[in-house]
Amino acid sequence: MIKIAIDAMGGDHAPQALVAGAELARDASQNDVEYILFGDQEQLKPLVKNSQNIRIVHADEVIAMDDEPVRAVKKKKNASLVLAAQAVRNGEADLLLSAGNTGALMVAGLLIIGRMKGINRPGLIVTLPVVDNDRGFTMIDAGANADAKVENVIQYAQLGKIYSQRVRALSNPRIGLINNGTEADKGDVNHRKMYEELEKLGQAGELNFIGNVEARDLLNNVTDVAVTDGFTGNAALKGIEGSALAVVNMIKDSITTGGFREKLGGLLLKPALKKIAKKMDYTRYGGSVLLGLKAPVIKTHGNSNAKTIFYALQSAADVAHSNLVTEIATQFADQKQQD
Amino acid sequence: MIKIAIDAMGGDHAPQALVAGAELARDASQNDVEYILFGDQEQLKPLVKNSQNIRIVHADEVIAMDDEPVRAVKKKKNASLVLAAQAVRNGEADLLLSAGNTGALMVAGLLIIGRMKGINRPGLIVTLPVVDNDRGFTMIDAGANADAKVENVIQYAQLGKIYSQRVRALSNPRIGLINNGTEADKGDVNHRKMYEELEKLGQAGELNFIGNVEARDLLNNVTDVAVTDGFTGNAALKGIEGSALAVVNMIKDSITTGGFREKLGGLLLKPALKKIAKKMDYTRYGGSVLLGLKAPVIKTHGNSNAKTIFYALQSAADVAHSNLVTEIATQFADQKQQD
Repeated sequence: MIKIAIDAMGGDHAPQALVAGAELARDASQNDVEYILFGDQEQLKPLVKNSQNIRIVHADEVIAMDDEPVRAVKKKKNASLVLAAQAVRNGEADLLLSAGNTGALMVAGLLIIGRMKGINRPGLIVTLPVVDNDRGFTMIDAGANADAKVENVIQYAQLGKIYSQRVRALSNPRIGLINNGTEADKGDVNHRKMYEELEKLGQAGELNFIGNVEARDLLNNVTDVAVTDGFTGNAALKGIEGSALAVVNMIKDSITTGGFREKLGGLLLKPALKKIAKKMDYTRYGGSVLLGLKAPVIKTHGNSNAKTIFYALQSAADVAHSNLVTEIATQFADQKQQD
Repeated sequence: MIKIAIDAMGGDHAPQALVAGAELARDASQNDVEYILFGDQEQLKPLVKNSQNIRIVHADEVIAMDDEPVRAVKKKKNASLVLAAQAVRNGEADLLLSAGNTGALMVAGLLIIGRMKGINRPGLIVTLPVVDNDRGFTMIDAGANADAKVENVIQYAQLGKIYSQRVRALSNPRIGLINNGTEADKGDVNHRKMYEELEKLGQAGELNFIGNVEARDLLNNVTDVAVTDGFTGNAALKGIEGSALAVVNMIKDSITTGGFREKLGGLLLKPALKKIAKKMDYTRYGGSVLLGLKAPVIKTHGNSNAKTIFYALQSAADVAHSNLVTEIATQFADQKQQD
């Protein structure tokens, strides 16, 4: 049975959203996942409607959204996040999920669960929608490592490939490098080096490297994996999110503040707009996954509601079933021997 | 009289769009601008309907979109772009506009017009829409300098301030640094240094530095000037553009491929959607301006039509009227003396 350690006290809607999300995921599961809720049992117990496959582990401290990450993880030894991470480290759970303080989650991942051998800097992989299919694409690193070196980014490409194969069932995922133009000589010094290294791996048959991709084309299915340093990835991702939201809000505004004509038009287009909103709803693709640790760590948005947690837990179970970590460990061990 | 040197042969719709755009701008002007079209006179002459304030200077070579920039500018001595840039250098025109090869335009700006004293690397400033007003915001550097050093970005902040004051009539423009979080300690090593330097200038009263801004908030009027290195700026900008376009296209698709309900809804919402499309149409704000040269160089999209060229020429005239270059020269000379 898969065991998921859940930081039940992290996030804007904790603990309610975490408990309700776990119950939704349990109801939809094949009875093959245990959901371990770490948090204040006085608060958690009354929230659990049906305790089948749900277990509470008491934790009497909470890491707040604005706590300084390293200090919080070190000092708050009984925090729900810390105890959940320890359970994963001790093999009592397969992976960790939190909607709380992102920095603290990364620190807990690094300090408590630990990096996998051969991986220098873990990377955050996130799945995003594309316009013309329901599969979407992934971006790695979406922001775990702002000071990325060339070799880190090469590892993100390899991690992205393994993730796409194991979790997303793509046999030969396209790997593109986010750059400021599609030509081979584009980019700053670092990105030109990344291109060269990725091209070598492509020529060696180790990656299906398709070259540079531009942030403007990502939603149009130009690549399966968009590889990037954490700083650029963060800017591209936030530009995409912010802009889609702005357009959707402008349309909503023009309907609600409009006259009869706009209101009727909005009413008629409602199902179509809902379908679009659903397609662009990246929470459907689960949380982002910090790859390169001894166990996967899954981060969902701080404002996650029960449904977001439900999607993230489903995706967490997929990750656990996929043997992703074993595969990464094997491939990076192999690579080591080749060096 | 303001004189604008136009590379009439550059761009996907050259020379038609350039000639038609110049005539539109002339018709809307106060008879105070001369439009000098550089290009093949055999082609250009028949296109000009009314030659008032429009002059043709013959150029018998053209730099193609895929020409290697440095080589093209050096070898094609009679190219429309090269002759237009020389006219600016020689004081026969106040600024240069092209819809052609971006790299070649930058090279022509650097090699022929020349950098302004005190400016290390010119930066591209672009004006973009925001959701809740018609003024928009500017981003500098939008991609001229992918390998930006900290001191380059500090100069972009200063250039962005002067541009906002002179061309956009903002007396005390807000200056924000694009970063991967709003807190002061966010970013990679370089962006943390940029923050520190900008904060010093803010404390000295030289800039209205409002701190870090995130790409996701740019369309929501969080800053007047978004300062960034050219690599990040390019990724954020392209993420924003691509995402807005993707959402708009999905809505269009759902209307055109939908049934009667969607078609009627689309018809009713058409004026509202048109208004939104107009608001988000960044070509209304004119082309992007390469700042830090002895004269401004204006770049419009390769696919510019007559209307885009018209907007860009209007904005070019504003730039010329604003005495921007004199102001930049004075302020950077002052700065030099302070050092």
